[in-house]
Amino acid sequence: MAKKNAFYAQSGGVTAVINASACGVIEAARQNKKHIGKLYAGRNGIIGALREELIDTSKETPKTIAALRHTPSGAFGSCRYKLKSLEDNKAEYERLIEVFKAHNIGYFFYNGGGDSADTCLKISQLSETMGYPLQAIHVPKTVDNDLPFTDNSPGFGSVAKYVAVSTKEAALDVESMCETSTKVFILEVMGRHAGWIAAAGGLAAEKEGDAPHIILFPEVAFNKDKFLKRVKSTVKKHGFCVIVASEGAQYKDGRFLADAGNTDAFGHKQLGGVAPTLANMIKDELGYKYHWALADYLQRAARHIASATDVEQAYAVGKAAVEMAIEGKNAVMPAIIRGKGKKYSWSIKEAPLDQIANVEKMMPRDYISKDGFGISEKGRAYLEPLIQGEDYPPYGKSGLPQFAQLKKVMVEKKIKKSFVIK
Amino acid sequence: MAKKNAFYAQSGGVTAVINASACGVIEAARQNKKHIGKLYAGRNGIIGALREELIDTSKETPKTIAALRHTPSGAFGSCRYKLKSLEDNKAEYERLIEVFKAHNIGYFFYNGGGDSADTCLKISQLSETMGYPLQAIHVPKTVDNDLPFTDNSPGFGSVAKYVAVSTKEAALDVESMCETSTKVFILEVMGRHAGWIAAAGGLAAEKEGDAPHIILFPEVAFNKDKFLKRVKSTVKKHGFCVIVASEGAQYKDGRFLADAGNTDAFGHKQLGGVAPTLANMIKDELGYKYHWALADYLQRAARHIASATDVEQAYAVGKAAVEMAIEGKNAVMPAIIRGKGKKYSWSIKEAPLDQIANVEKMMPRDYISKDGFGISEKGRAYLEPLIQGEDYPPYGKSGLPQFAQLKKVMVEKKIKKSFVIK
Repeated sequence: MAKKNAFYAQSGGVTAVINASACGVIEAARQNKKHIGKLYAGRNGIIGALREELIDTSKETPKTIAALRHTPSGAFGSCRYKLKSLEDNKAEYERLIEVFKAHNIGYFFYNGGGDSADTCLKISQLSETMGYPLQAIHVPKTVDNDLPFTDNSPGFGSVAKYVAVSTKEAALDVESMCETSTKVFILEVMGRHAGWIAAAGGLAAEKEGDAPHIILFPEVAFNKDKFLKRVKSTVKKHGFCVIVASEGAQYKDGRFLADAGNTDAFGHKQLGGVAPTLANMIKDELGYKYHWALADYLQRAARHIASATDVEQAYAVGKAAVEMAIEGKNAVMPAIIRGKGKKYSWSIKEAPLDQIANVEKMMPRDYISKDGFGISEKGRAYLEPLIQGEDYPPYGKSGLPQFAQLKKVMVEKKIKKSFVIK
Repeated sequence: MAKKNAFYAQSGGVTAVINASACGVIEAARQNKKHIGKLYAGRNGIIGALREELIDTSKETPKTIAALRHTPSGAFGSCRYKLKSLEDNKAEYERLIEVFKAHNIGYFFYNGGGDSADTCLKISQLSETMGYPLQAIHVPKTVDNDLPFTDNSPGFGSVAKYVAVSTKEAALDVESMCETSTKVFILEVMGRHAGWIAAAGGLAAEKEGDAPHIILFPEVAFNKDKFLKRVKSTVKKHGFCVIVASEGAQYKDGRFLADAGNTDAFGHKQLGGVAPTLANMIKDELGYKYHWALADYLQRAARHIASATDVEQAYAVGKAAVEMAIEGKNAVMPAIIRGKGKKYSWSIKEAPLDQIANVEKMMPRDYISKDGFGISEKGRAYLEPLIQGEDYPPYGKSGLPQFAQLKKVMVEKKIKKSFVIK
């Protein structure tokens, strides 16, 4: 059998370390030229395959590829695009096969979260249903940490580190001025469905009484009275109160706090979500001076304070994906498995994609403290190893981190017909 | 003359490096025991002097004091409290003299911004008007960079680095997904009166066309049509648009964008300010998908990405303040003077406090590009040296930075009468 080329694409929300996985995939492919021909990356993810917009990674120098390891965001472009089922949009699958055939692609590496695992699974099935030999391997990535089977998802550890460090720093700021200034500080973090990122804020509390004093999880129904009582008692006790709130914090009936009530003079829903909603409550009911921050993309792009553990794991799953492909695997994902010992250790194991796709891993209730406002010791024991170590990018004369600059040489198109994304 | 003790206080909004100045003051005082007795720090700033709440810094180990250099926020507590004039509140000044006398304090080191320089000046005048010998030295600090005479203010360089790095990282994130997701990203930064911090975002653009594409300064009147046109043309050209907006961005008539119009269903002013206001405009008029971030305290507390130049300067002004005191100076401030050469250099020079107090240094118009949406080459040449170098704090087993833990041993009170702060 002639040597096949490979296709790699980034999918969904990008992270501080998804390019480290790309680096792992590309470097491993280069080390296995006996088995894998060229590695093409989809421009803007799977859309690049559909449009036959393929970036020839072989045109990039080893130095540039190595620099991907410390470059945040999706270097080849990513997209939010979920393939429909084979029945609902056969044309899309036929197009993919057409493009893969034209470029002799036999390996499909898809770097994404739960939705992308589903896409990857569908593509792995093309091999059978459409008679085209293709091995599809999913490379895990999501800041939300909600992929099943794997102990954690690459991308999460770095957001966790950013949120924990930022919470610790901002809490010191508030503490030092609470006598005459701000008494309540709210940091709103990502996590629409699962509270993993908010939980990471809890790591900032290294000893009893440390900030954050309150964490709001999507997993624990918000109770306004209980919340305000806790804010008040915390300010009385410590002089200030630091709150980390998940954007997914919600009432018992499932309404998000972010959507609850506030509209502006023009009838718009008030933007910004949970933090300003909580701030309003606190102002109205308790009258404390407050400040709030919304980290938004800063948190998932913060390569400057990435977790070294996360970077290492992101690279390792990329590399492992290529090795699994060479071993002939299909419809699998390299998962991170935590060792049993007291000291944190991890290894990589193959996970079947049909057990990953479309399954959301929520935070176990026993990772949350009994009162619902913090993390438990069990939660801390799970989270802490994931933010270990710093992996600083190099800085240039400009005083700024120097990230990979790809040439992105496009592969010549072989198919005349263009394909329109709907 | 018997050896006098010294008093040090932190004032106003804290920064990532004000404790580096404290470290400079304390270490220099310890090296000059021949001239300076004990160094007392005011608990929560000048309020600590009024309340006779003095922290005995001699009880802290050299290691703890050294750790202040990498600890953000105000380790001794800070406050926003401006002394009235001698005529308006003589009791306050009499109380200060009473406390200083009781503790044999002859040196007053005040670490703050413009308002604090004014307080420091007033206190320096006590020496003459109230017949109590006291040398008052101001130690410059402000993230706003608006102190006159000094080339820059310690605290600013680190916020500048945080904003430049965050802008660069978030811009990569947006760029990589703009095809199918967010097209406009807005980062709101501090700077109610001067656009220095927003300008620092401009450093992220290392080459033509790089993000940020638009900076909104308080110094340039906001023009909605011109702004929206620029957003639209930027998205057309680059596929996305990154905006750094100063919280002080304002219309020609002086109305802040943050205050303009939006109130929620309960008649509250919409919280959050400039970023959501701009986001609303963009949504309504252009329909682009947007995201926005509000860094708030995270930016001024971000010791994890402090500028090494800033840390060094913050320490140096603290040390110089003590040296000036020993030389018998009064009513002065150690200012940072930029060297004339092409290569950045700096030294410290004494500046008279009466030329500092209550003067706000705005950003020169020629630091801003002609179209008002970016920084000029002159602006870049000024800003870039200030974010040079990284000065990472040590990290512990928890994966978090390890900051100074002060014992804060209080000095025994000598005055029976307590003083109530109004």
